Amino acid sequence: MVNTLYLPELREMLAENNADEMREFCTALHPARTAEFMEGLTADEAWRVLQHADAETREEIFGYFDEDKQLEILESQDRQEIAGLVAEMPPDDRVDLLQEADDTIVEEILPLLPTDERRDYLRLREYPEGVAGAVMTTEVAKLGDGLTVKQALEELGRQAEELETIYYLYVVDETDHLRGVVSARQLVSAMTHPETRLGELMETDVAAANVLDDQEEVAQKVARFDLLAIPVVDDEHRMLGIITHDDVIDVMREEATEDAHRIAAVNPLEESYMKTPVFTLSWKRGVWLTILFVFALLTAFALQHFETDIQSYTWLVLFIPLVISSGGNTGNQSATLIITAMATKDIELRDWLLVVRRELATGLLLGGFLALIGFVAAIILTQEVVPSVVVAVTLVLVVICGTLFGSVLPLMFKRLGLDPALMSSPFVAGIIDILGIVIYMRVALLLMSMTDGGVPDPNPVETSSLFFFR
Amino acid sequence: MVNTLYLPELREMLAENNADEMREFCTALHPARTAEFMEGLTADEAWRVLQHADAETREEIFGYFDEDKQLEILESQDRQEIAGLVAEMPPDDRVDLLQEADDTIVEEILPLLPTDERRDYLRLREYPEGVAGAVMTTEVAKLGDGLTVKQALEELGRQAEELETIYYLYVVDETDHLRGVVSARQLVSAMTHPETRLGELMETDVAAANVLDDQEEVAQKVARFDLLAIPVVDDEHRMLGIITHDDVIDVMREEATEDAHRIAAVNPLEESYMKTPVFTLSWKRGVWLTILFVFALLTAFALQHFETDIQSYTWLVLFIPLVISSGGNTGNQSATLIITAMATKDIELRDWLLVVRRELATGLLLGGFLALIGFVAAIILTQEVVPSVVVAVTLVLVVICGTLFGSVLPLMFKRLGLDPALMSSPFVAGIIDILGIVIYMRVALLLMSMTDGGVPDPNPVETSSLFFFR
Repeated sequence: MVNTLYLPELREMLAENNADEMREFCTALHPARTAEFMEGLTADEAWRVLQHADAETREEIFGYFDEDKQLEILESQDRQEIAGLVAEMPPDDRVDLLQEADDTIVEEILPLLPTDERRDYLRLREYPEGVAGAVMTTEVAKLGDGLTVKQALEELGRQAEELETIYYLYVVDETDHLRGVVSARQLVSAMTHPETRLGELMETDVAAANVLDDQEEVAQKVARFDLLAIPVVDDEHRMLGIITHDDVIDVMREEATEDAHRIAAVNPLEESYMKTPVFTLSWKRGVWLTILFVFALLTAFALQHFETDIQSYTWLVLFIPLVISSGGNTGNQSATLIITAMATKDIELRDWLLVVRRELATGLLLGGFLALIGFVAAIILTQEVVPSVVVAVTLVLVVICGTLFGSVLPLMFKRLGLDPALMSSPFVAGIIDILGIVIYMRVALLLMSMTDGGVPDPNPVETSSLFFFR
Repeated sequence: MVNTLYLPELREMLAENNADEMREFCTALHPARTAEFMEGLTADEAWRVLQHADAETREEIFGYFDEDKQLEILESQDRQEIAGLVAEMPPDDRVDLLQEADDTIVEEILPLLPTDERRDYLRLREYPEGVAGAVMTTEVAKLGDGLTVKQALEELGRQAEELETIYYLYVVDETDHLRGVVSARQLVSAMTHPETRLGELMETDVAAANVLDDQEEVAQKVARFDLLAIPVVDDEHRMLGIITHDDVIDVMREEATEDAHRIAAVNPLEESYMKTPVFTLSWKRGVWLTILFVFALLTAFALQHFETDIQSYTWLVLFIPLVISSGGNTGNQSATLIITAMATKDIELRDWLLVVRRELATGLLLGGFLALIGFVAAIILTQEVVPSVVVAVTLVLVVICGTLFGSVLPLMFKRLGLDPALMSSPFVAGIIDILGIVIYMRVALLLMSMTDGGVPDPNPVETSSLFFFR
């Protein structure tokens, strides 16, 4: 929802070019809220308002604009001024934004950036998406272990404005190898002994991420250790940057959405739903939809196999959708439960036997209950006992198949080193569809043969009418 | 995976009762890692090892045990010692643990707690699950605005050990009303002017949560403002506690899992999958499975309506599962995309028309493609053109229905103030199942009547063999 509360006042300030009021507006509130009140402005107007903030506040407010507006401003305004803004941005956000921007504009801005920022950008953008290096920021407090508490506090006071987090001080040797960490909390506690050296104070057992670690694993590590930030190191344990708590929250959100999409058989989108072009969206859905479709096609061939039986007992047709969707829904439930439980480490591979037992029991309970309703419904529809028994027995078996395949397949894919969320859902659905048909037909033939004497009636229409068509 | 690396050493230390080594073990590593190495120990053994840590470290390591082991220790060890441990715990974790524990044991422990901790517990446990009050902690730095930077730093140094976060100092008046916030960063920057008063330094525009706000909303606010913690206030803006970044991560994880479960038509579990009894699990799945089953039953009645047509054209049966699952899968994709996009605020209600247009276009593309494959498959199966055209046309229509209902229903439920994740998935699946059958039959009858002259053959078996059965 666009916040239009201050829009008239803002437009008035712009019309009157009221510098004082605009400056006041830029600094009075939390930058996130200021950005929110500016949502209704055009890129031009927003940029004109921001002229009245100092470089740092300008960048902060800009950081809370949505990406579209950021890009519009970046691509439309004076290159030199934009370069100043980009230089102020946190290194990780800078990379994210420039990667979205038009390449020719990036080429124009780059030479205008200070050397350090330019080099930093060129290095960071080399990391592939989804690894720690692509999320980290390079603005971090690195100090030598010989510093005293007093010196460290002074140093921190000088740098506090520029750093993304001051809550951990990382202690490194001369060649940037990570040696330990001192939290701001420890530093503050130690203020009574200002001559203590960081080397005595620091924790040497530091949880760190490799620069090429998967971002999801890093986020999980931060969550497990309740950290505010995690240092990112290279293979030689040289410190390259940190990933802060706000980036971790973004990563966790992103991954949860991706998992939900995978479970629904959609290839994860690189951008948000609204920004993904329809054609890309169709492609990402079409791939899996086609695989699912091929599975469903197999049901047609399976049904063809039973064509004469279906002709003999036409009532069989009525319950085909019921059987298939009961199996599919149960399988979908099981797969989602298992996949989410594995994602939160509630289930490990070694628990597989217990999981299978639990799912078997659940399947019996659920199948039994649905069979009961199905039996009653079939009695109403067919007014015959045998078809109703067929439906009931089939439902129990199909629901159990649903719980078993829904739980075993994700475990299996995990065991094979594949993403369980990515692979399970289409396979569970496909396998259950085909199995459902086969079970249904086999149960029907078996029970009919027990009651009919095993010989399908030579006159199918009349036989079927016996059971169902009046 | 249980970490068994140090298990032999730990068992040896216990056997020899080697106090020095156990003390060393408790303090050498990050408490999370120490807890990990102790996973393989029994509750008794773990507690004996923890005896060698000071009260604070003991609580920290204990905090990283999984809940089962925490409960086992709580319920099996000496009450007086356990009360000492519980008194050390952060107030929010204390409430979570005691709520899981056996009531009679809690009654025995409560009188042994210090008065402050006991009162705090009794107050916190009154908040219903899922609101800010139930997640907050009460250990927070509240200071008066008359304090100087120097005094604040000293005060912080004294309290740092006990506080859950020292990264924000909240400024309150004499009756605890929240007036502003000073970040540790600001405090450190201001160290060069130690006589500045907090009142001059503080931000007065503080993002806060009401104690009865939904935890998901609070988590989103923290994420939006990139906060490390958010203060929790009552209706009079009196400060009651804070919610810290690690709790926010837990809340976001919990909510993502709940949404995934709802999308798969499982009522959210209160506990993890492995801890939920099979009977509870079956109940939480059975409720929605039954609703879905009733929808699927309607397909049986719909098919009964077309019984004579199916007898006339038996090939119709072959593609029933294909039609239903294509619609269902497409609907599931759309619903999941829309639900997750609404959860991350990518889509707002006002975007509904744009969403519908996009989904319509996607449906056309996907439906067209699947129709093409379906047509070829139907030609192979039936060796007839008309049935293949029926299948192709039906697929286009059913897939479009899938994208439309899959996108409109979540938006509609949101508009009605219902949880889109909770409601959409069963309704989308159910409606598409029935619609799929009706569309399929209507298209078949229409096209057959155009080619047959509208009169079903009086001899159904022979007519159908015309089309399909050889």
